[in-house]
Amino acid sequence: MSIEKELRHLKELLIKMSVFVESSIKDAVNSLVERDDELAQKVIDGDHTINFLDVQIDEECIRILACTQPMAQDLRFITTAMKITTDLERIADNAVNIAERALELNKEPILKPYIDIPRMSRIAQRMVVDTINAYITKDNALAKDVIMRDDEMDELNEGIWEELMEIMMKDPSTISRAVKITYVSKYLERIADHATNIAEDVIYMAKGKIIRHMDPGKF
Amino acid sequence: MSIEKELRHLKELLIKMSVFVESSIKDAVNSLVERDDELAQKVIDGDHTINFLDVQIDEECIRILACTQPMAQDLRFITTAMKITTDLERIADNAVNIAERALELNKEPILKPYIDIPRMSRIAQRMVVDTINAYITKDNALAKDVIMRDDEMDELNEGIWEELMEIMMKDPSTISRAVKITYVSKYLERIADHATNIAEDVIYMAKGKIIRHMDPGKF
Repeated sequence: MSIEKELRHLKELLIKMSVFVESSIKDAVNSLVERDDELAQKVIDGDHTINFLDVQIDEECIRILACTQPMAQDLRFITTAMKITTDLERIADNAVNIAERALELNKEPILKPYIDIPRMSRIAQRMVVDTINAYITKDNALAKDVIMRDDEMDELNEGIWEELMEIMMKDPSTISRAVKITYVSKYLERIADHATNIAEDVIYMAKGKIIRHMDPGKF
Repeated sequence: MSIEKELRHLKELLIKMSVFVESSIKDAVNSLVERDDELAQKVIDGDHTINFLDVQIDEECIRILACTQPMAQDLRFITTAMKITTDLERIADNAVNIAERALELNKEPILKPYIDIPRMSRIAQRMVVDTINAYITKDNALAKDVIMRDDEMDELNEGIWEELMEIMMKDPSTISRAVKITYVSKYLERIADHATNIAEDVIYMAKGKIIRHMDPGKF
């Protein structure tokens, strides 16, 4: 197979994986908001498909490296794919964690309607989709834009923490539920961190310049 | 440079990075146990060295791939190094998170003496050191042993959660501190997860067999 065909196939696999991952986040948060245990279980059970894709893409990358011995740009594109799958797989693990907390929370009375959690979920899902598009199309501007959105996620997470601390202080019978909700918020914030990692890798790949761990204003 | 020399240099860099990371975990937990703000700040400030090594090792790997076009075993060794640095860097991020919580907790009265947290830290540190040794010496048995230790970390984390839930229920004025300590425990458990990821990658590399995401009993 030509290198172009190999790379096209690799891109298709990555898109497939990212679609699964995005659904996992959405379903996990919906299972919490709609108190739907079946949906939560679906997220947990579906994780093996994502794990399988992770391994499959890695194997593809190693095979392409060994068979085509690509240079420069293609080499970086392939090694970046291997980094991206690691982050996508961790994002899916966080979705599983949310689904697990949902199963626990659904057993207890609802603490309060979820407003900011679904909002964080929508931002996180969009970050994942956009960051993979940025990789596929080598779109630096889009990758930068994803990185910028991470601050909003941090703020939302902080806000949820403060609100729940207040609820717990007032009524200690809410502690177990409230702490679990802070965990869900943390998981979503961590998903955004992984999407940010991918976005940084994309810019790094495109620019061949070290932007990881740099202040976003500086690249 | 010959491929042997290149790989030796790569191993040295990875050992250097793992030594920094292990110190970070130790210092972060000590800064909490000994209520030492200066040490906590040292962990936070030292993170850029680890980030720098992460990027440096990645660059080395890409350069070796491009220049020597290694086959089979060496190819897998190099691509595994790129995966390992990602996990090491995340471990260091978790150490920074612990140091940040330490700075907050050190401002408040001590809740109770820390016993299980230092114990978790010692196990986590050992897991990191052993997993890197397993990679360098291609020691599968050691890698498997690291994976087995993950269960103990999960149990310790669970125990801390239950103990702190009880404390919070009895006395809501402890909530803010107690929740932060559950976070520290979570960070340590997550460090163990990253060490486990590395150990799985090592076995995968050595056996050329897909063990990631498999039941540890099966490989």
